[in-house]
Amino acid sequence: MNFQGLRVEVAGRIARVTIDHPPLNLLDAVLLRELSRLARRLAELGDDVRVVVIDSADPEFFVAHLDVGMLSTIGDDPEASVGSFQDLMGRYRALPQVTIAKIAGRLAGGASEWILNLDMRFAVRGRAVFNQVETGLGIVPAGSGSQLLPALMGRARALEVILGHDDVDAETAQLYGWVNRTLDADACDAVVERLATRIADLPLALIAGVKRAVDAGAPDLGPGLATERAVIAEAVTDPYARQRIAAFLAAGGQTRAGEVSLGELVGPGHVRQ
Amino acid sequence: MNFQGLRVEVAGRIARVTIDHPPLNLLDAVLLRELSRLARRLAELGDDVRVVVIDSADPEFFVAHLDVGMLSTIGDDPEASVGSFQDLMGRYRALPQVTIAKIAGRLAGGASEWILNLDMRFAVRGRAVFNQVETGLGIVPAGSGSQLLPALMGRARALEVILGHDDVDAETAQLYGWVNRTLDADACDAVVERLATRIADLPLALIAGVKRAVDAGAPDLGPGLATERAVIAEAVTDPYARQRIAAFLAAGGQTRAGEVSLGELVGPGHVRQ
Amino acid sequence: MNFQGLRVEVAGRIARVTIDHPPLNLLDAVLLRELSRLARRLAELGDDVRVVVIDSADPEFFVAHLDVGMLSTIGDDPEASVGSFQDLMGRYRALPQVTIAKIAGRLAGGASEWILNLDMRFAVRGRAVFNQVETGLGIVPAGSGSQLLPALMGRARALEVILGHDDVDAETAQLYGWVNRTLDADACDAVVERLATRIADLPLALIAGVKRAVDAGAPDLGPGLATERAVIAEAVTDPYARQRIAAFLAAGGQTRAGEVSLGELVGPGHVRQ
Repeated sequence: MNFQGLRVEVAGRIARVTIDHPPLNLLDAVLLRELSRLARRLAELGDDVRVVVIDSADPEFFVAHLDVGMLSTIGDDPEASVGSFQDLMGRYRALPQVTIAKIAGRLAGGASEWILNLDMRFAVRGRAVFNQVETGLGIVPAGSGSQLLPALMGRARALEVILGHDDVDAETAQLYGWVNRTLDADACDAVVERLATRIADLPLALIAGVKRAVDAGAPDLGPGLATERAVIAEAVTDPYARQRIAAFLAAGGQTRAGEVSLGELVGPGHVRQ
Repeated sequence: MNFQGLRVEVAGRIARVTIDHPPLNLLDAVLLRELSRLARRLAELGDDVRVVVIDSADPEFFVAHLDVGMLSTIGDDPEASVGSFQDLMGRYRALPQVTIAKIAGRLAGGASEWILNLDMRFAVRGRAVFNQVETGLGIVPAGSGSQLLPALMGRARALEVILGHDDVDAETAQLYGWVNRTLDADACDAVVERLATRIADLPLALIAGVKRAVDAGAPDLGPGLATERAVIAEAVTDPYARQRIAAFLAAGGQTRAGEVSLGELVGPGHVRQ
Repeated sequence: MNFQGLRVEVAGRIARVTIDHPPLNLLDAVLLRELSRLARRLAELGDDVRVVVIDSADPEFFVAHLDVGMLSTIGDDPEASVGSFQDLMGRYRALPQVTIAKIAGRLAGGASEWILNLDMRFAVRGRAVFNQVETGLGIVPAGSGSQLLPALMGRARALEVILGHDDVDAETAQLYGWVNRTLDADACDAVVERLATRIADLPLALIAGVKRAVDAGAPDLGPGLATERAVIAEAVTDPYARQRIAAFLAAGGQTRAGEVSLGELVGPGHVRQ
C-alpha cells in the first residue's frame, strides 16, 4: 500500500505500519491525511487484515506531537476543527481490527491521543517517553485525551499528566496503565509478535464481537468530548496560547534539538521567561 | 456441609471452600450444580457465615475452565443457556458475604469468570496462571468477563487478555488488577487469613452495607451482559467454534497433560494446523 | 492567612498548607471548621492561588482520622449530619485550583476521605500509612470513600481496604492507585515541587478547563453518596457501633500510643475482647 510518511506492509493478515515521516514524525497535515486514508483502507480490507501493529522508523521519536502550526490556522470555528480531529480518533476506536502500538521514542500531545485510541500499547523500557504536553502550550488535550486518560489511569494520575505537561518515563507509564506493559526492547518485540500472531489467528467477526461486548459496558464518550471541544475553543482563541506557542517555537519547539527535552522546553524555565 | 467436588467447612463464621473435583477441577455440570447449591446455602446461612475463602485441593489447577462439552449441547436457544450461566455469576456477585479466592494453579475461561464475580482475589507467585481462553476456542467470554475485566484492568489490558487467549502469570495479573495482590505462598496464606478474620469480626449487616454503598456507584451491567449474550450466540453456533473446539480436544484439551500448557494448546501452532 | 491547626503560606501562586494540630492532627470540630474556611478562602483567591500543596507538621500523623467523639453527637438526623460532611468534601472536589497532598505519617478514616477528594496524592515510602478504618469502629466510610476508592482502585481492592480496616503501606497504596506515586522522601519533595511549579505556571482558567473536561466524563456521584448516607445512618444508630467505638477508646484510640498501631487497635484482638 502506498502512503506518504507511513510504510505499510500486510502479511499473514497482520498490517505492519511504520511511521517514517522525517525529520521528527510530526503529526502534520500530511500525516493526518494519511492516517485518515489508512483508517479507511483498513475498514475496506475487512478480514484480510485482523491486526495492525504500529511502530516508528525513528528511534528517538515515535510521533512527536500535533504540528502546532495547525493551531494558528484553526479558523473561525475551532469547535468544528477540533471535532474533525475527534472524528478521526473515533474512526480508529471503531475499527473492527485490533490495533497495537509498539512505542519507543517520544510520543506527545495530539499524537499521544491518537495512540490512546488504539486498542493496546506496549512501551520499550528506557526509550519510550510520554508527554501530554498541551497545557504547556496554553491549550488542552482535545482529541479525546481528557476522556481516555482518566479511563485508563484514574482521575488523579490523568490530572497529573495533563496539567504537569512533563515527560513521563516508560516505567511510570506502565504503573499508570498508560501502556499495557513496559518491556525491554527484545521482550517487547517478542510479546507483541506473539500476541499479534495469536489474534490474527481469529476471524475478524470474532475479534469485532469481543470489541463490541467490551465497549457495550463503557460509558458514552459524547458528553465528555463535547466539553473538550468547548474548553479548547476557549483556550485556543486566547492570546495566551498564541504567546506560549510562539515562545515554544522560539526556544526550539518542532526541532529535534529542542524536542528531545520537551518537558524542559515547555516548562517554566524556558517558555515563560 | 455435603457437596460434590467441593469441601466446605464453617468455623468462626468463615466458610472455607476447597475445590476438589479430580481430575482437573473442570467446571462441568456437576460443579456448576454444586456452585449453585453453595450460593443458595450461603444466602440461607446469613450472619452465620460472613466470609467465604475459596481455594483448590489441586496444586496445578485452581479450576480448569468450563467443560467445553457443555458448549456442544447448548441447544436451540444459546442466549437462554448463557443467560442462566450469567445468572449464576450474578448470584455470587449479590451475596451479602465477602468472597475471597486464594489462587494457586491454573484458572481459565468460564471458571475465571466465576472468580471475577467474587469480591477479592489473591494469587500465589509462581503458581497461579490465568487464561481468559475463550477466543482460542472460537467463542467469547459470556459469564460477565467482557464487562468485569475492563472494569478491573481497563479496556486495553482487557482486550489483550481476552483476544490473546494466552497464559498470564501472577505478576502480570497483579499489575493488571486481575487480582488484589500476588504474594509468596506463605504470605498469601497469612494475608488472606488476617483479612478473613478481620472481616468475620464484622456483623453481616455492616458488610452488606459496605457492598451496597460501593455497588451503588457502579454502572449497570445489564446492557453489557445482553451484548455478551448476543455475541456468544453468534459465535457458538458458527461451525468455526465447533472446529476449533474439536481441534483443542484432539490436541489434548481437558487432559492434565494438555492443559498444563493451555496457552500453547489453543495457540496457532496446535489448534489451527 | 490565619487559621487554627493549619499553617498557610502563599508564594508564587502556590498555597502551602501544613496541618499542625497537636497532639495527633485529629480531624475534630476545630479542624473541620478550618478546612471549611480554607475551601472558601481558596475559592475567593481565584487566580492568586493555582496550586495547593498540603503536608503535615507531624512526622507520624498526616491526619489521624475523624474525631470519633463527633459520631456520638451526630444527633437525630444522621443523614443530614453526614450530608454536611459530604458537602465539605464536594467543595474540595469542586475547587478550580489543583490540590496535592504530600503524605508522610498516618492517614485514616474520614481524614483519608478528605484527601481522596483532592486532585493528587503522593506518598513517602516507609512513612505513609493508610487505613480506611471505619468498619473497625462499626460504621462505614460516608464522606464519599465508598465511591472514590472503587473509582481509583477498582471494586475488589476497595472492598479489601474498606472491609479490612487494616493498615496499608505506601507501596501497596501505589499499586492500588490510592496515591499517584510512592517515592523516597527527597524524591517526593522534588517531584511535588516540580509538578506544583509547572502547574502554577498555567492560568487558573486553563487549569479549571482541564478539570471541567476530565470531570465531564465521570459518572454522577449523587446516587452513590445517597446510598452512603442511608448505610451510615443505619450503622451509626446501632448499639454495635457505640460499643465498638467505646472499646476502641478504652484500648487507646485517639492517643498517640494507641494510634501508631491503628490496624491492631481496631482488629479482633483488641476491640472485640
